[in-house]
Amino acid sequence: MYDLVIRDGICFIDGKFVHANVGVEGNVITYVGKGDVHGSVEIDAKEKIVIPGIFNAHTHLAMTLFRGYAEDLPLKDWLEKKIWKVERMLEPEDVYWGSLLGILEMLKTGTTAFSDLYIHMDEVAKAVGETGIRAVLSYGMADRGDEEKAKRELEIGLKFIKNWNNAFNGRIKAIFGPHAPYTCTPEFLRKVKEVSNDLNTYVHIHVAETKWEVEHVKSIYGKTPIRLLDEIGFLDERTVIAHVIWLDDEEMKILKERNVSVVHCPISNLKLASGIARVKDLHDLGVNVCLGTDGASSNNTYNMFEEIKMTSLLQKVITGRADALKASEVLKMATENGYKAYGIKGGRIEKGYLADIVLVDKRRHNYTPIYDPLHSLVYASYGCEVTHVIIDGDLIVEDGIILTIDEDKILDKIESLKEKFQTGTNFVP
Amino acid sequence: MYDLVIRDGICFIDGKFVHANVGVEGNVITYVGKGDVHGSVEIDAKEKIVIPGIFNAHTHLAMTLFRGYAEDLPLKDWLEKKIWKVERMLEPEDVYWGSLLGILEMLKTGTTAFSDLYIHMDEVAKAVGETGIRAVLSYGMADRGDEEKAKRELEIGLKFIKNWNNAFNGRIKAIFGPHAPYTCTPEFLRKVKEVSNDLNTYVHIHVAETKWEVEHVKSIYGKTPIRLLDEIGFLDERTVIAHVIWLDDEEMKILKERNVSVVHCPISNLKLASGIARVKDLHDLGVNVCLGTDGASSNNTYNMFEEIKMTSLLQKVITGRADALKASEVLKMATENGYKAYGIKGGRIEKGYLADIVLVDKRRHNYTPIYDPLHSLVYASYGCEVTHVIIDGDLIVEDGIILTIDEDKILDKIESLKEKFQTGTNFVP
Repeated sequence: MYDLVIRDGICFIDGKFVHANVGVEGNVITYVGKGDVHGSVEIDAKEKIVIPGIFNAHTHLAMTLFRGYAEDLPLKDWLEKKIWKVERMLEPEDVYWGSLLGILEMLKTGTTAFSDLYIHMDEVAKAVGETGIRAVLSYGMADRGDEEKAKRELEIGLKFIKNWNNAFNGRIKAIFGPHAPYTCTPEFLRKVKEVSNDLNTYVHIHVAETKWEVEHVKSIYGKTPIRLLDEIGFLDERTVIAHVIWLDDEEMKILKERNVSVVHCPISNLKLASGIARVKDLHDLGVNVCLGTDGASSNNTYNMFEEIKMTSLLQKVITGRADALKASEVLKMATENGYKAYGIKGGRIEKGYLADIVLVDKRRHNYTPIYDPLHSLVYASYGCEVTHVIIDGDLIVEDGIILTIDEDKILDKIESLKEKFQTGTNFVP
Repeated sequence: MYDLVIRDGICFIDGKFVHANVGVEGNVITYVGKGDVHGSVEIDAKEKIVIPGIFNAHTHLAMTLFRGYAEDLPLKDWLEKKIWKVERMLEPEDVYWGSLLGILEMLKTGTTAFSDLYIHMDEVAKAVGETGIRAVLSYGMADRGDEEKAKRELEIGLKFIKNWNNAFNGRIKAIFGPHAPYTCTPEFLRKVKEVSNDLNTYVHIHVAETKWEVEHVKSIYGKTPIRLLDEIGFLDERTVIAHVIWLDDEEMKILKERNVSVVHCPISNLKLASGIARVKDLHDLGVNVCLGTDGASSNNTYNMFEEIKMTSLLQKVITGRADALKASEVLKMATENGYKAYGIKGGRIEKGYLADIVLVDKRRHNYTPIYDPLHSLVYASYGCEVTHVIIDGDLIVEDGIILTIDEDKILDKIESLKEKFQTGTNFVP
């Protein structure tokens, strides 16, 4: 007798779909096989495709508040005249509600875990607690060459880790989030890495997102961001780097040698005209590539099915090969690789792994006919096919309804919050 | 008293969203304004975004049957070992059901009209008649250098036009569909154009989809496909060209001078690793650019919201400008420009235009908050937000339910049909 079982589904196991039953005890998968299983909660998956939970490995969750706020602008205007302005207006309560909306969208589209780097992170942690999702959270730090600020930022980051790491049955992993090599000095980054080594924790950072960034860092330090980070001992298996668009071949090898994980955010990278990361090359080298949406203001959704399809399509066109990146490889990037990047034993339907599992409706016009559920999922999903989401062994979404939060209340609240950003009143500099 | 009214919606009119009521008489919009309107059918659009019907300007509809059939293969293997093999197995009944499934998906995602080029076109026409959608249909002709075949192909194409043009209250426009300059000889294409001139009808063709095609045509005729077509008098305002990826600047100007319309199929172009068309440049030159999905086997959906978002994103990254192609321009490409390409007075919410109108649910987690419905639609749609579809004045989709066809029956039938393609039995060479 298991706590929860999923019966008669076709499950993504070891890169392909096979019929299996799944048994969960506590928050862990304890059975995968053909045998008959029974549990306190039983889910009939005869008409479902069963996949490991999706991991959105790079977000700024509360930016849902700015979804559609600033559009079709050159990057500089977008940041300086719009986004930074409204971000300075953010109060803790805004981040709480913005995060709830982000989690709502992620749960509805099969994301069971995410890695967030933002401000007012206590509020994000609260939202994670209430909703039942899993998260890696980091306070976004930047010293901008100011020693006092460096000290304060590290204190906030450290306090956040101490307060929240392992909260909610371990659903929160709190780590460090220094912003980027152009907003943090090498001294600060070195210090952050030292403290993270002492704590045996992870570091999440943006690197090589724009060509400008690479040129800027080179002009100041005489070397590219990746080489700079390598030189100060920043790169290892507990470093997760978002974007990595502007890399040369040698830098790719450095990432591989140091066992760094990278997060590809294809839609945001296109929308901000940043570029297209060489994901197939990184993958072929053996780098652990995972996928993320980035913030909602440069996307504008947290629907990971879009990133999955986009990742595959972009690598096909930039390599000129329609066979580049198999669908199974991309689905693995969106699930297992994200968990692996942050050292969490999840993202696989396998005994001993965390019970983060997603059920997708098989009978959809866009999935018809199904030759192989793998290609249906990767190439034909809209994002509205998810019916059930199990996280940490708990059923969080059932038949498309989120059991832990009130969707209407969140939508109403967000519509009311947007007014202050629209009018620019209530400005907190 | 109108036949149908849409009240209190926010409507896409002249490139922006404004509050308006819409009145329809017969199959035409006869009122757009702030005044009170009443009708035999009344639709409350207070919680809706109202847009002109979406035009999918390049499809091979029945390829829904091969959705997911051949994946992650090099183009040559994909075509020669897979797609051409199963296409030879297609019987008229298959095309009928495959087309119904394609129309089902299009209706559910707000597409009111499409342009199809395929085989067994009588069956596609029947499906169009039954479902209530609008379509431009053409039999896909290719002479491959065989004079006898040229004659036969033209006869089939001509017969199709004579049988079906203007059928179903004008919902079908039957035109010519010579396949491409590498499968049709210049003599054949010249002849097709002559006959189309006599009939005052349109021509739909694939050109410059792959680099191979351009090199191949150059090696035989000593000039690029566009220059070859121009030389034989093929290019004018009644020519619609799909793909146009591999063009030089001068060819773009030729397309503009000849008033040719082009169809951008971004997802298919990526999936087959064909390339990325320079849509912003074509648009800036004043070429009428519209959007299409191409066949479901290289996409794998007929969800035009994906093409809309993709079009915008790709042009931003290839031009390096986050402000390239405004959202309103892309939405116009997906609606008005498609109708215009084929000489149909639709695609605008305006007095005198055909009543092809789509209502989209405003209250969705992915649209929250709405600063401007334009950006919500273009950047945050999944494709499952459409609630009502009106085509030719008739309500075809109501609250997400298609009123003209039985969805379950179609899904069941398609699942049963796929078996013959899977096993390769029943092979008709």
